[in-house]
Amino acid sequence: LGNLYDKLVKYAQSDFYPYHMPGHKRQPLEGFSEHLTELDITEIEDFDNLHHAEGIILQAQQTVAEAYGVEESFFLVNGSTSGILSAVSAAVPFGGHLLISRNCHKSVFHAAYLRHLQLSYVYPKINQEFDICEAVTPDQVEEMLQCNTDIQAVLIVSPTYEGRIADVSGIAEVVHRRGIPLIVDEAHGAHLGFSEGFAKNSGRLGADLVINSVHKTLPAMTQTALLHCNGNLVSRDKLKRFLNIYQSSSPSYILMASIEQAVQTAAERGEMFQNFREEWMRMLQQLKKLQCIKIPAEATGGNAQDVGKLVISTKGTDMSGKQLADMLRNRYHLEMEMACETYVLAMFTIGDSREGFTRLTEALEEIDRDLCRKNKVGTGAFTETVEMMSYIDVTPDIPFFQAWDREKEFVNLYSSKGRLAGEFIHLYPPGTPIVVPGECITEEVINRINSCLKAGLEVQGVYKREGRTEPAVRCIIQAEICNDI
Amino acid sequence: LGNLYDKLVKYAQSDFYPYHMPGHKRQPLEGFSEHLTELDITEIEDFDNLHHAEGIILQAQQTVAEAYGVEESFFLVNGSTSGILSAVSAAVPFGGHLLISRNCHKSVFHAAYLRHLQLSYVYPKINQEFDICEAVTPDQVEEMLQCNTDIQAVLIVSPTYEGRIADVSGIAEVVHRRGIPLIVDEAHGAHLGFSEGFAKNSGRLGADLVINSVHKTLPAMTQTALLHCNGNLVSRDKLKRFLNIYQSSSPSYILMASIEQAVQTAAERGEMFQNFREEWMRMLQQLKKLQCIKIPAEATGGNAQDVGKLVISTKGTDMSGKQLADMLRNRYHLEMEMACETYVLAMFTIGDSREGFTRLTEALEEIDRDLCRKNKVGTGAFTETVEMMSYIDVTPDIPFFQAWDREKEFVNLYSSKGRLAGEFIHLYPPGTPIVVPGECITEEVINRINSCLKAGLEVQGVYKREGRTEPAVRCIIQAEICNDI
Repeated sequence: LGNLYDKLVKYAQSDFYPYHMPGHKRQPLEGFSEHLTELDITEIEDFDNLHHAEGIILQAQQTVAEAYGVEESFFLVNGSTSGILSAVSAAVPFGGHLLISRNCHKSVFHAAYLRHLQLSYVYPKINQEFDICEAVTPDQVEEMLQCNTDIQAVLIVSPTYEGRIADVSGIAEVVHRRGIPLIVDEAHGAHLGFSEGFAKNSGRLGADLVINSVHKTLPAMTQTALLHCNGNLVSRDKLKRFLNIYQSSSPSYILMASIEQAVQTAAERGEMFQNFREEWMRMLQQLKKLQCIKIPAEATGGNAQDVGKLVISTKGTDMSGKQLADMLRNRYHLEMEMACETYVLAMFTIGDSREGFTRLTEALEEIDRDLCRKNKVGTGAFTETVEMMSYIDVTPDIPFFQAWDREKEFVNLYSSKGRLAGEFIHLYPPGTPIVVPGECITEEVINRINSCLKAGLEVQGVYKREGRTEPAVRCIIQAEICNDI
Repeated sequence: LGNLYDKLVKYAQSDFYPYHMPGHKRQPLEGFSEHLTELDITEIEDFDNLHHAEGIILQAQQTVAEAYGVEESFFLVNGSTSGILSAVSAAVPFGGHLLISRNCHKSVFHAAYLRHLQLSYVYPKINQEFDICEAVTPDQVEEMLQCNTDIQAVLIVSPTYEGRIADVSGIAEVVHRRGIPLIVDEAHGAHLGFSEGFAKNSGRLGADLVINSVHKTLPAMTQTALLHCNGNLVSRDKLKRFLNIYQSSSPSYILMASIEQAVQTAAERGEMFQNFREEWMRMLQQLKKLQCIKIPAEATGGNAQDVGKLVISTKGTDMSGKQLADMLRNRYHLEMEMACETYVLAMFTIGDSREGFTRLTEALEEIDRDLCRKNKVGTGAFTETVEMMSYIDVTPDIPFFQAWDREKEFVNLYSSKGRLAGEFIHLYPPGTPIVVPGECITEEVINRINSCLKAGLEVQGVYKREGRTEPAVRCIIQAEICNDI
């Protein structure tokens, strides 16, 4: 398993002495109990160069490309963030026009800011039962492309944070009919396509550029990711240029080796996926019996919902998602991926043990019993007051990249109706924006933020000011009040 | 030692079960023999968020800022690259004018490309005895600022790759007289300012923004770095925005913990620096006696040359730097930091053992004896044919950021005289450009590249084409031939 890894181990065992970076010279770090730094080298002879790969790193990347069924793959040591920045920068000319699904990661907006892009949005449908975004559809993309014939590339998210999987091949067809490239932010789908019972990966379904976070759903170290490429709608030269720009010129060999190891594990250990899926199905059979806590029915199969992402809904009960997550942490020592008003999100991968499945199942069964008992005399507080906001289709008066650079002032959140946002406002995690700079702060936006704050969630872009009790947001100074509220 | 580290260890030892990223769930990676992944978590409750630090990461950053004597410090997990991109983007408005020392890292050019900056250069003097760049001086900077009153920030490199240290406080004075900020790329100086006998760090000498690679000269993992800030000439808000843009939204806690550990070691273990300096001085006393191989006299003290960077010159002998490095590797199993035509560069840090100093000393003594014996009947080949190129002060006809985007074609290197370069051409390492896109390829440039290729060095931006024996470079198509050759 793992050429790069083997080579690193072998080198660590040799008597070569380093007169080069890094400064720890492969000796144990002070206080660190392990010898991981034995493997932490720099671009020395025979170890290739990520930014100019022609040796062992190139080979490792080719092995990975084969595993995903794509033409070419690049290792990323600065996360999917660097893959998104590079893909968008290479696919759309400076000042160009990009169509994105509105629930995409902040890095997509950052790429648009750096490259002065015009953004148009596909708004995902909201699943009202579970307050989550559905994946965008080929029809939605087609409609936008018909209305905006100058769009130069399309970027969608699939799977979504909550595991909704788009019809990538249908969308690719719609996009390619216009001769423009499709970028899929598949950060949450590095595990796809390796085994029966899991959806295919976007690289095999016709996407031109695909970004995977290896660390998210495969056993790899945090900050590791991949960029896959197909076809010639995006220049590989430009892509390499931007990868070179957005990533450290001292990439970590430990991170790179971790990518190779994780993908080889995924490619060669089919039984791990089968065990994983069996444990998953067994757990879902139990969880479906819960009375007050709900899980989406789609979770049990089909290609529209990813195996591994478990939405646990408390909607209609006395308990918020945040409260459920706190209880799971404090009483059961179970730490969730994310909590919001009406649900928590738990993630499972091939790295999970049976213990992981049973402990959560048993905890939820116990909580559910308590919850149903109380709920009979409860208020159902979270049925009425908290509701997922549908995104509002607004055309901002000022392009986003300009708006973000404009002068700003603090405004009391509750008096900000009709003002133009000067900053992103988003819930973290997942970090997809409620409001983008230059967009109008509507009453719906204020209500949504208010309910998040009441539920004790972290809303970035909302400030507490000294000596003031009410929260504030930053708005563009002297900007005209918007009309479409 | 290390709050963040302690907290990670404690968490690893608890029975908390993760239903969140990363996918390995803190289990050992396949094939990896150590449990380093025990510490590899994501932004879970109570572990703060690098991009919105207000807890344990903020505290760690404050401790580091104190250690360097600066107002504020930021952890970087995407190397000094991300610090340079952020510093330049925040310090100069889009389309602005930046003065840089010409021997700076490619990330500075990348920042200028992203932000459409006009670049002016300070050309470092060349030390002809050792073929290395000297640090730039206050007078050189002053002269450029007098001629170009619209310059909005200055960026210099100190220490240089070869360890030359600039008069940062003198340069800061010159720059601040114009009310503009000074950025110091101190990637090679994270170890400065901690002990007697070492130069002060730039943060204490008046620089506004300073970038350190922690992994380069302190015992930290590859890809770790710091950005330090002083004063209000650069908006902290903007700085944070760009740090958020250029770095992964899933930053590695192992990398962050490694930064904290390394700086605490440096701050608390003064005796390590004293031992280091003693070993260094003892080695230099021996190396000064060499007859054919030369080391710079400044290496033995003073503030103009860094302790730890050893230039080992073969100029005037039969041996190229590359050949010396190959011999040190193959015969003695000693791996150098860098090799070029007439010298090799060896790096020492507080992480070195006595063995490291003695093995290199003894190897060089042996090689020197052989070399002097042969040299008496030798040709002195590397005295005549290889010479460091002085940088030529050219004003390109096309701004660099536009030139890099122009259409290009391959041109035989030896027929490229008078053409405009379409790409960077540089020696790796260190990766500072010989030619920047938009600049004229002069005869001197061609000779320089030719001698690098003859010496067997890696010149990026020079291509071998299938079926052709002569090397090629990529030039701008249909660009006017330049006159200033």
